[in-house]
Amino acid sequence: MDNKNASSTAGKIIRCRAAISRIPGKPLVMEEIEVDPPKAGEVRIKILCTSLCHSDVTFWRSTQPPMAVFPRILGHEAVGVVESVGGGVEEVREGDLVLPVFQGDCGECRDCKSPKSNICSKFVNKDNQSMPRDGTNRFRDLKGEVIHNVLNVSSFTQYTVVDVTHVVKITPDIPLDIACLLSCGVSTGLGAAWKVAEVEEGSTVAIFGLGAVGLSVAEGARIRGATRIIGVDLNPEKFETGKKFGITDFINPATCGDKTVSQVIKEMTDGGADYCFECIGLASVMNDAFNSSREGWGKTVILGVEMHGSPISLNSIEILKGRSVCGTFFGGLKPKSDIATLAQKYLDKELNLDEFITHEVSFHDINKAFDLLLEGKSLRCVIWIDKQN
Amino acid sequence: MDNKNASSTAGKIIRCRAAISRIPGKPLVMEEIEVDPPKAGEVRIKILCTSLCHSDVTFWRSTQPPMAVFPRILGHEAVGVVESVGGGVEEVREGDLVLPVFQGDCGECRDCKSPKSNICSKFVNKDNQSMPRDGTNRFRDLKGEVIHNVLNVSSFTQYTVVDVTHVVKITPDIPLDIACLLSCGVSTGLGAAWKVAEVEEGSTVAIFGLGAVGLSVAEGARIRGATRIIGVDLNPEKFETGKKFGITDFINPATCGDKTVSQVIKEMTDGGADYCFECIGLASVMNDAFNSSREGWGKTVILGVEMHGSPISLNSIEILKGRSVCGTFFGGLKPKSDIATLAQKYLDKELNLDEFITHEVSFHDINKAFDLLLEGKSLRCVIWIDKQN
Repeated sequence: MDNKNASSTAGKIIRCRAAISRIPGKPLVMEEIEVDPPKAGEVRIKILCTSLCHSDVTFWRSTQPPMAVFPRILGHEAVGVVESVGGGVEEVREGDLVLPVFQGDCGECRDCKSPKSNICSKFVNKDNQSMPRDGTNRFRDLKGEVIHNVLNVSSFTQYTVVDVTHVVKITPDIPLDIACLLSCGVSTGLGAAWKVAEVEEGSTVAIFGLGAVGLSVAEGARIRGATRIIGVDLNPEKFETGKKFGITDFINPATCGDKTVSQVIKEMTDGGADYCFECIGLASVMNDAFNSSREGWGKTVILGVEMHGSPISLNSIEILKGRSVCGTFFGGLKPKSDIATLAQKYLDKELNLDEFITHEVSFHDINKAFDLLLEGKSLRCVIWIDKQN
Repeated sequence: MDNKNASSTAGKIIRCRAAISRIPGKPLVMEEIEVDPPKAGEVRIKILCTSLCHSDVTFWRSTQPPMAVFPRILGHEAVGVVESVGGGVEEVREGDLVLPVFQGDCGECRDCKSPKSNICSKFVNKDNQSMPRDGTNRFRDLKGEVIHNVLNVSSFTQYTVVDVTHVVKITPDIPLDIACLLSCGVSTGLGAAWKVAEVEEGSTVAIFGLGAVGLSVAEGARIRGATRIIGVDLNPEKFETGKKFGITDFINPATCGDKTVSQVIKEMTDGGADYCFECIGLASVMNDAFNSSREGWGKTVILGVEMHGSPISLNSIEILKGRSVCGTFFGGLKPKSDIATLAQKYLDKELNLDEFITHEVSFHDINKAFDLLLEGKSLRCVIWIDKQN
């Protein structure tokens, strides 16, 4: 770790390269930017590697506020090294390997103190384009224009500044690319199966959408002992991929004939799955997931952010029959305690995470990561910003 | 207990009086009917007292199938004495004090064996107008016309026949009118707070609709240690009534001015209630309840049967913030084990149930019970069919 360099930049503005999103849906542009030193409660991180999650694509494509904010540095799955810390930060220090995480974990608010919530309520400012503590920015281009951030992280840059409530220290024993995965999508799916649904041994699970999040739900359900894990996806190639993560059955909604997906699942499972997960972000699929859950105790977990902001519509009689629906960000995980548990499970070879990394590119090829995800070719494409160890 | 009489009728058709609903919304008619002996797996019960629940009113008013079934014997909250049992019935015998309960509990199916469900799945025939085991009827008028039953019970009669999976033995230590309450509405509310929501000490609760079900949710939340129990009702008199069952705050939606009920609740509770209960059966109120629940762990429990069959519509982003919605029949209680627990809590003076009984009438005045409920004057009006002890 290059601690000497890091300490020499502490307190100073850093000039570095970043991939900037300036026009909705257009390729990111590599530019030189200035990154301010961290203020009180903040941490400046040298990003080592990052990866592309679907949420970044949603922001990148957006043309309407509040999602459309440009220019902006996207990226919120990453791992890096602390370059310097602002006043009052004692939890991490220069040289620590850390994950920046979009979900806060202050440890002090009513939510963080409760075992039931992972929705940190410390900061009122949640505009998702500036720092959470004071609503200002740390990035500028060389003309002096402010570059906004995303999801409290912004990792498509050599250096970023993140509030300490969004920084999680991680063991250096774990490979960097695996650590990177744990900062968002894969943890979300694992957590949804583990902490939100609390999938039980011998249970049946249906997963709608087999991207990295859906497949990590499968992996989470597999290690919890589910005996039947049904994947639902329009891409038939996902069955082979899914088998690596515990998928036992596959349904392509396009080939169900006269039947609905929920009818097929009810027939396969003698009345409906114990646990259903929506990992796409479409109200109609949320409804399919609910209708595929069994009477008595069927639980539907919503992970997808509805693409059009549409409401979920549920049959009011069917819910009375003991069904439930809940939603989750980051799989209900408390970043500062639960990520370490997942990392240990990986190190103990309980969790299969290697297979999520299907591609890797250098930072200057970051736009290829977008192409691979949009073409449905990658689960996770790791983007190496600066591989140091 | 008049066991001698009971045994003399075993195996024979019984002629007795019943209050029959022949025309939607019109007064019940007292008639003589014939009640067949119980078939295998069935129990013939001499009803001692019964009470009127809102669901009976819904069936009574219905003009469209499948709800509208006439002629019919309504009533599903009751207590009685076993007159005789059909073949294979060993769980209860002649002379036992029992509750007929709309919710089945066979103890054998996958649902009954699981601690997570109270939706007995033993019988396929669930037409809600005949016996669950074979789909035939036990009531006829003196012209020979079949009289249909309701909710597996039909208690507005001196004698009824109920499947043993819907019969719960109860201690004779409990007053008959209190036992009667435990067979439906009051247990539903208590169970929703206790077994479905699992209300915690110090928590905040919002209850939409302060009829007997809503007030029994309040009573259930009170004994679980909730510190703030907000009642929402259009009838301002419900606040005084509600105080007897633990209601600490009251909101009349008609006097909220520019604010929505959920805005008012969020202001009162610093972000939303921990637990919200819908006890009316209107999709718009289900939505209000959901919107009144807090981020992080807010749980909304639906108890009301939607009056128009409308779906529930939920904001798909708000559910992602850790909220959940579930529904329940009979408060998630397993009748054969959980009613005894509630009865004991009453006998131990933990539960206040006496105040639910606001009126009582004789069987021949049964139509007065309808008037009192429709005028919002009664919580429960006990109808004495035949008071023997």
